[in-house]
Amino acid sequence: MEIEFLGTGAGVPARSRNVTSIALKLLDERNEVWLFDCGEGTQQQILKTTIKPRKVNKIFITHLHGDHIFGLPGFLTSRSNQGGETRLDLYGPTGIKRYVQTSLAVTGTRLSYPIAYHEITEPGIVFEDDQFQVSQLKLDHRIDSYGYRIQEAAFTGELLVDKLKAEQVPSGPIYGKLKAGETVSLPDGRVLNGHDYIGESRPGRIVAIMGDTRKTDHTITLAQDADVLVHESTFSQHESKLARQYFHSTSTQAAQIAVAAHCRRLLLTHISARYLGRAARQLQEEAREVFPNTRVVNDFDIIKIPLPVAVKE
Amino acid sequence: MEIEFLGTGAGVPARSRNVTSIALKLLDERNEVWLFDCGEGTQQQILKTTIKPRKVNKIFITHLHGDHIFGLPGFLTSRSNQGGETRLDLYGPTGIKRYVQTSLAVTGTRLSYPIAYHEITEPGIVFEDDQFQVSQLKLDHRIDSYGYRIQEAAFTGELLVDKLKAEQVPSGPIYGKLKAGETVSLPDGRVLNGHDYIGESRPGRIVAIMGDTRKTDHTITLAQDADVLVHESTFSQHESKLARQYFHSTSTQAAQIAVAAHCRRLLLTHISARYLGRAARQLQEEAREVFPNTRVVNDFDIIKIPLPVAVKE
Ligand SMILES: [Zn+2]
Ligand SMILES: [Zn+2]
Repeated sequence: MEIEFLGTGAGVPARSRNVTSIALKLLDERNEVWLFDCGEGTQQQILKTTIKPRKVNKIFITHLHGDHIFGLPGFLTSRSNQGGETRLDLYGPTGIKRYVQTSLAVTGTRLSYPIAYHEITEPGIVFEDDQFQVSQLKLDHRIDSYGYRIQEAAFTGELLVDKLKAEQVPSGPIYGKLKAGETVSLPDGRVLNGHDYIGESRPGRIVAIMGDTRKTDHTITLAQDADVLVHESTFSQHESKLARQYFHSTSTQAAQIAVAAHCRRLLLTHISARYLGRAARQLQEEAREVFPNTRVVNDFDIIKIPLPVAVKE
Repeated sequence: MEIEFLGTGAGVPARSRNVTSIALKLLDERNEVWLFDCGEGTQQQILKTTIKPRKVNKIFITHLHGDHIFGLPGFLTSRSNQGGETRLDLYGPTGIKRYVQTSLAVTGTRLSYPIAYHEITEPGIVFEDDQFQVSQLKLDHRIDSYGYRIQEAAFTGELLVDKLKAEQVPSGPIYGKLKAGETVSLPDGRVLNGHDYIGESRPGRIVAIMGDTRKTDHTITLAQDADVLVHESTFSQHESKLARQYFHSTSTQAAQIAVAAHCRRLLLTHISARYLGRAARQLQEEAREVFPNTRVVNDFDIIKIPLPVAVKE
């Protein structure tokens, strides 16, 4: 599991930062890539990475500002031209379907794969299977903007069959009871505690990716105990009035959220073009005073999200 | 007058060529820049040039395929964010207004300047003032695709007042007659031929910029006597069947058009990603066998269009 930042700028593209797009690479987990937002030029950014457009099978849109969606029609079209055949699921605010369908209709584009549209109508879970759950809540922006929490299912420990066989425990219904953690008496008088025969388990990983927003409690909910929180940092703490006025956050506010939500790591993105080089590092320093494990990311940064330490059951 | 190529690729962006956009820079003539097509990423390409978005006050769209228009909403939005206040005229096929208006409405974008939409309904002149005339005709593509002919007004010679004064010709209605090229008798018996007192004149320049198309007579009409013809060359002459099948042209066909229309110079663009490096030069060689003054252009190439040689009246 990795996050690759395809665009880390705010509002308009700059030479140093393209507008927003974030790839959650789940290649080891399910050979898929999920995009969060798709600003103009995302497909050109992807050309500079190892990401294959046909592996992108889910796109989550945080909000409908142009710097987050104007790359969508081009990406969808090129995915078709480049052999994409599998269904693509598109999640986002109401209006995203109209935007994409109008863009495809006006250009006379027929895609080689179907799009399943999932427009958000109420807070809650937007996707769930055995492996991942994605939920969303509305944030505090000028227009409807959402944050997404991506939660991996816990890995439960396997029954240690080899150990049982080495101890000459005969197979049968006993194995199921041990796997369930029960204590079992054998015919030969031995008493076995199931917990001694179950391998390591570990919790699943949690990634929280926020849309543009002011500081809001909903972010704390979404980011609770997250391994990684991706939060906007459009302004410095010295511009908190501007941040409030334009419905954005400061670096310090993002860090406060990370503290309150007990996150492991904070990645700051959506950096205004006014903060170049040293000024962007200054944003990072501000946040680190509140939450030390903070990084201001740049285009093409890849952040690995390691498996949590295993927990013996 | 210069043409700067912002994107010279076909269909999908490639690392070496972005999708189509062409800037006609009329800075000396009228301090304006006109864009022809606006594929995704055009605003990012512009960031690498000296072009100021607010000086772009006319955009001509050749056809509604995504590789020619998906950069339009982002460019229009950024032009607004970067202080553009003057009206922008947008010319193109029917549907371009719906596409732009939907994109702006869905994103809740209010531009700081008005857009005047000019959807093409019949062949003819789309813009005309004292200095320039732009006309269009439909070409031969899968969807409606247009070519544009940009014709500069002729420069007529000025009356050489200094020369008249040096020869002590008294001012008065006589000057008007001389300017009109008439022969005039002076009270002192001198006979003056107006043509001897009119400065140099020269024809205006002609640029013809075509949308995607098969070889068609309408291109010959639009490109008649053009100083520069910009024509697509999606395929090599060895792929003429593919060109026909996909409603595109070969390099050789473009050159045949340049010959038939008596053009001065041919610029080949809209190069498929299958032709890289040496293969693109091969397209150029093919065309040069038919029309020697041909060049396959690359992104960021700037082509100056010099004033024609002055003609003594
Ligand atoms: Zn934004
Ligand atoms: Zn094209």
